[in-house]
Amino acid sequence: MRPSKRAADEMRAVSFERGVSKHAEGSCLVRFGDTHVLCTASLEEKVPGWMRNSGKGWVTAEYGMLPRSTGDRMRREASSGKQGGRTLEIQRLIGRSLRAVVDLQALGEQQITVDCDVIQADGGTRTAAITGGWVALHECLRWMETRQMVKLDKVLKDHVAAISCGIVDGAPVIDLDYAEDSTAGTDANFVMTGKGGIVEIQGTAEGAPFSEEEFASLMALARVGIIRLVSLQKMAVA
Amino acid sequence: MRPSKRAADEMRAVSFERGVSKHAEGSCLVRFGDTHVLCTASLEEKVPGWMRNSGKGWVTAEYGMLPRSTGDRMRREASSGKQGGRTLEIQRLIGRSLRAVVDLQALGEQQITVDCDVIQADGGTRTAAITGGWVALHECLRWMETRQMVKLDKVLKDHVAAISCGIVDGAPVIDLDYAEDSTAGTDANFVMTGKGGIVEIQGTAEGAPFSEEEFASLMALARVGIIRLVSLQKMAVA
Amino acid sequence: MRPSKRAADEMRAVSFERGVSKHAEGSCLVRFGDTHVLCTASLEEKVPGWMRNSGKGWVTAEYGMLPRSTGDRMRREASSGKQGGRTLEIQRLIGRSLRAVVDLQALGEQQITVDCDVIQADGGTRTAAITGGWVALHECLRWMETRQMVKLDKVLKDHVAAISCGIVDGAPVIDLDYAEDSTAGTDANFVMTGKGGIVEIQGTAEGAPFSEEEFASLMALARVGIIRLVSLQKMAVA
Amino acid sequence: MRPSKRAADEMRAVSFERGVSKHAEGSCLVRFGDTHVLCTASLEEKVPGWMRNSGKGWVTAEYGMLPRSTGDRMRREASSGKQGGRTLEIQRLIGRSLRAVVDLQALGEQQITVDCDVIQADGGTRTAAITGGWVALHECLRWMETRQMVKLDKVLKDHVAAISCGIVDGAPVIDLDYAEDSTAGTDANFVMTGKGGIVEIQGTAEGAPFSEEEFASLMALARVGIIRLVSLQKMAVA
Amino acid sequence: MRPSKRAADEMRAVSFERGVSKHAEGSCLVRFGDTHVLCTASLEEKVPGWMRNSGKGWVTAEYGMLPRSTGDRMRREASSGKQGGRTLEIQRLIGRSLRAVVDLQALGEQQITVDCDVIQADGGTRTAAITGGWVALHECLRWMETRQMVKLDKVLKDHVAAISCGIVDGAPVIDLDYAEDSTAGTDANFVMTGKGGIVEIQGTAEGAPFSEEEFASLMALARVGIIRLVSLQKMAVA
Amino acid sequence: MRPSKRAADEMRAVSFERGVSKHAEGSCLVRFGDTHVLCTASLEEKVPGWMRNSGKGWVTAEYGMLPRSTGDRMRREASSGKQGGRTLEIQRLIGRSLRAVVDLQALGEQQITVDCDVIQADGGTRTAAITGGWVALHECLRWMETRQMVKLDKVLKDHVAAISCGIVDGAPVIDLDYAEDSTAGTDANFVMTGKGGIVEIQGTAEGAPFSEEEFASLMALARVGIIRLVSLQKMAVA
Repeated sequence: MRPSKRAADEMRAVSFERGVSKHAEGSCLVRFGDTHVLCTASLEEKVPGWMRNSGKGWVTAEYGMLPRSTGDRMRREASSGKQGGRTLEIQRLIGRSLRAVVDLQALGEQQITVDCDVIQADGGTRTAAITGGWVALHECLRWMETRQMVKLDKVLKDHVAAISCGIVDGAPVIDLDYAEDSTAGTDANFVMTGKGGIVEIQGTAEGAPFSEEEFASLMALARVGIIRLVSLQKMAVA
Repeated sequence: MRPSKRAADEMRAVSFERGVSKHAEGSCLVRFGDTHVLCTASLEEKVPGWMRNSGKGWVTAEYGMLPRSTGDRMRREASSGKQGGRTLEIQRLIGRSLRAVVDLQALGEQQITVDCDVIQADGGTRTAAITGGWVALHECLRWMETRQMVKLDKVLKDHVAAISCGIVDGAPVIDLDYAEDSTAGTDANFVMTGKGGIVEIQGTAEGAPFSEEEFASLMALARVGIIRLVSLQKMAVA
Repeated sequence: MRPSKRAADEMRAVSFERGVSKHAEGSCLVRFGDTHVLCTASLEEKVPGWMRNSGKGWVTAEYGMLPRSTGDRMRREASSGKQGGRTLEIQRLIGRSLRAVVDLQALGEQQITVDCDVIQADGGTRTAAITGGWVALHECLRWMETRQMVKLDKVLKDHVAAISCGIVDGAPVIDLDYAEDSTAGTDANFVMTGKGGIVEIQGTAEGAPFSEEEFASLMALARVGIIRLVSLQKMAVA
Repeated sequence: MRPSKRAADEMRAVSFERGVSKHAEGSCLVRFGDTHVLCTASLEEKVPGWMRNSGKGWVTAEYGMLPRSTGDRMRREASSGKQGGRTLEIQRLIGRSLRAVVDLQALGEQQITVDCDVIQADGGTRTAAITGGWVALHECLRWMETRQMVKLDKVLKDHVAAISCGIVDGAPVIDLDYAEDSTAGTDANFVMTGKGGIVEIQGTAEGAPFSEEEFASLMALARVGIIRLVSLQKMAVA
Repeated sequence: MRPSKRAADEMRAVSFERGVSKHAEGSCLVRFGDTHVLCTASLEEKVPGWMRNSGKGWVTAEYGMLPRSTGDRMRREASSGKQGGRTLEIQRLIGRSLRAVVDLQALGEQQITVDCDVIQADGGTRTAAITGGWVALHECLRWMETRQMVKLDKVLKDHVAAISCGIVDGAPVIDLDYAEDSTAGTDANFVMTGKGGIVEIQGTAEGAPFSEEEFASLMALARVGIIRLVSLQKMAVA
Repeated sequence: MRPSKRAADEMRAVSFERGVSKHAEGSCLVRFGDTHVLCTASLEEKVPGWMRNSGKGWVTAEYGMLPRSTGDRMRREASSGKQGGRTLEIQRLIGRSLRAVVDLQALGEQQITVDCDVIQADGGTRTAAITGGWVALHECLRWMETRQMVKLDKVLKDHVAAISCGIVDGAPVIDLDYAEDSTAGTDANFVMTGKGGIVEIQGTAEGAPFSEEEFASLMALARVGIIRLVSLQKMAVA
């Protein structure tokens, strides 16, 4: 029995609240249970220096946690003077995942920055950020389409969503919350597209090494979860 | 006529939403119109090094803005490697304001950190942060009282709230939003207690210098506004 | 009786020593009693990026304290790797105060940086810096006028000076030295122009909140002090 | 045909040169073809603050690249003032991988830091670092065993090695060099133990998403490669 | 003929003004012509961590330049976030030079920090700093002797002073000012004790390499200059 | 008798291994006994901003030590966030020394960066870096000459090499290793050209001051050592 009473293949309640920011071109407050991430997509005219005059655009992401989004208060990264390794690792992952479904040529020479700020954390913040970040990006591109700046369906080629799976007390389960995450023997994150292609896989043995069979069971769980997340994204942007 | 159609002495809709954080001992999402600030109060056992063994506690504050809380995306301070002067100035003000109504001796040797994170900005973020920060602090102290750690009414001696006033197009008005803030000739922030004592006054001529009479008119507006904010705080914590 | 034996409305001996720097276009060593601040005004051709091609110039200020300007040696900010919040707050105040009396259009697209370095501190360093900074700025603009670069009286529209007042042992006094500053219940800084306009007001309750009447008594003291400072500035630049 | 003329399942020449450092308790210069990484294992008596008095030890890793280890000179991280996201990500991976085969209790309250410095890069630096880092760690523990500080086979429970696989021009290949790495459609790193357990999997679509079948083919290649690396490690430490 | 009309072996006017700081235990404003350096010696009870419980004290130095001490305004190091290589090099030299004449055992476990801040620069700031720093250190030790904390003549074993010499337009000259410094072919700094021992020699070819004979001529000039500086130090502390 | 059994005027075994980097235009692994420094020379098209459009090129150097190049592991400078004073001092010295024999006009508007990374340290790393850096620079310029970019003998006017000498147990000796370096009373570094010109002299009293005669004995030793180093450089680049 999982601490949350969920079945092994049962995700937490997932919701997307769009248009939560007065200022951003696209925004989405995504909730995976008690994990809440505010995603905003900001259109900027500049692209990174190394892309200038390439005719191509860029999509990038930044990630942060509010100091008391967690059980114990964390030190504010702005105050400690640098972003930690975990933060950098996650925001690189979000950026790569979103770019996997974007046609940078069709975007044209402009940049969209997706900020993912964790308002409250209960495990799975990076997967929530990718999944909600896609909704914010979609909203931003629709905003641009309304202004004849892009064709939304040319730029955004597919959905992308992410879910964590892990082996807890010997059993594979989906969408770990913090209580499970901190005791999981193996923890894996899967990023997949609407068409079922895999964009990113990260699996880590927290305790004992895991076997290929165990990993396959996690991937099977993930596949079902992603299908559900993509279907929720479709409803959210409909 | 003000851009927002408000009367000169009319504040924006103010609301306090308590208990918005699963983790923090105290929390409050405060809204002054479209300015939304998430305030959390975190109890920590340590106090700053220079206070150790003093028998006294400490209340401090930190302030931050989400990158797209503003009309144009701001660079993330964690990424630029330091907090800007404005940020440091505001968080010092919030801390001083809250400490003005706290009996640090009665708190005992523990620290409460009030984080004020601007989710959405439309002028007056520092005054909202002080006013909402007080509610989060109150909730934290009540949490502690429930656990026999402190006597709430010994530690928290009074209310404290803050409001901005300014001279816009020659007329004194209260609670400036961004549209007014950016054109105001004079801008002043007032921090006052429930009993009417003044904790902090900051007045700045953005364009031409102002007169003592003009300043008096701003203070009169502020006094009425603070009374209203304190009354809303009372309802919020009732 | 004040520790310094001064009357409540009696400022410390104030002096301005001009031309103290071989290199700077304008310079002034200002003394408020034992508080000594070296102010230099440096003309630079560049303006900040966001002002380029605006046809307008810029006046900015930087502030620093020598490590042993204070009773206990302070850590050198260059060595700790960042300027503290108090430093940033003060240099922003100095810059705003000086700009309040400058016509940036008449200055034309060039920048003047006023560096205020505290050689010795005994309370009131920011007010001395503003008051002496104005003299350095005046000298710099005269240097420019001599070279037909500007019209001094077009660019510099008025005097600006600053003074601190506070409530010490229940009584309002002017121009606090360190001994008073560290025991004052209320501490306020006033920045005013030669014509009597107010540029900046900052009042802070260090202990108990203060009343409107108390604040008015501080402002009355300040007004007289500023008149005297402006008259001393006039003699200094004559 | 691969640019290097290797067969799809053919790794580059791998060698381990032990004892290359006069000072370090353990060291190994590992070569995967033209990728050369100097690994040193340093014994330190202190452990991180959060582990003190736990009776357990710690193994950590740091990673760096010499500025001209790459085709174009990279900026020295010591000079730019911070380690980049990629660096932090890799050194966290190396540390996790090595700890997966270490019994921290048996190590006792002391720390071993494995520094992996890339002398020359030609793709696969992180996999070489993990594989060579294990040899350096082994040598350090043997040094300690000689001094009756630990039992080597109690502390080091197994081998750990790593290899990259990728899909290049549609075909799965092992141990990508830089020429292949920069054109690979999919790139994956596998970290496994001597007993065949999986410690870490990281797969990334650089271009189009990949399928489960493709991923399985990479894992199959990796498994054979790891067996070979472990066998080379055995010879190296014999 | 030198730009300053001085003879080849003629130093600039050198003066030491003691007791210029209200707060510091020792202080000296040293002038070598238009080069003015404010030196303060601060007594602190702590010593660096690696010296604790050694029974020995420490003397260290810090060096800084006011932004407009130079012909063109330099960026403030506190604002750029780090001390430059030249600054660090000079403050290390000052510290080593002063320690060469101090008996750290006799000082006992306390630290003296000598801050050398350049108020105005015209060449030779490091030599002025060492020479004036010695006077500030002497004053500090006398202050301590008055309080029975040390025996001045046990701690301070000798004088130490420094002078620059260089080859300008082919001729060896002493005590270069900025005009000479920027055109000198060879530039050397000599630090010597009152008894004539050499503490530090630094010679640099700015243009063509120099010969042993040229270097000997510089050292001969320096020796005479140091004798004169030591004699001036004796008068200053008499 | 020296700890290494060497005669007073006997250098350690010196060797230059060229072409050790697959990527760099020039490279050399230099060994002075157990001191091993990897030097690479990288050609870059950009020059520093202040040299642009001057028609002249630039040669600069960077220096670093691997964390466990030393007896005790040093903290990685990239991780501590800044280069230490010793590092900056040494890399400035290497750059100045190399530029002393380069005709920047003949190089043309391009930059060569010589990175000197200490793989293993046993005293004398800076002298090894200068001496080996010259070989790497020579190789880089030959690479350029092959491509008709420069005339090697126009750009590189002479050899430059460096050696340390010191007074250990009262006797002058050459090429100190770490054991001697840490007990030397006086330590001096000499940088000289192939023609015998002096480029840089740095002498430091670590304990008691030294005399002119002692210094002369060190310089005599150095002169013979440099002749030998230059002769070895000639063989290395032949």
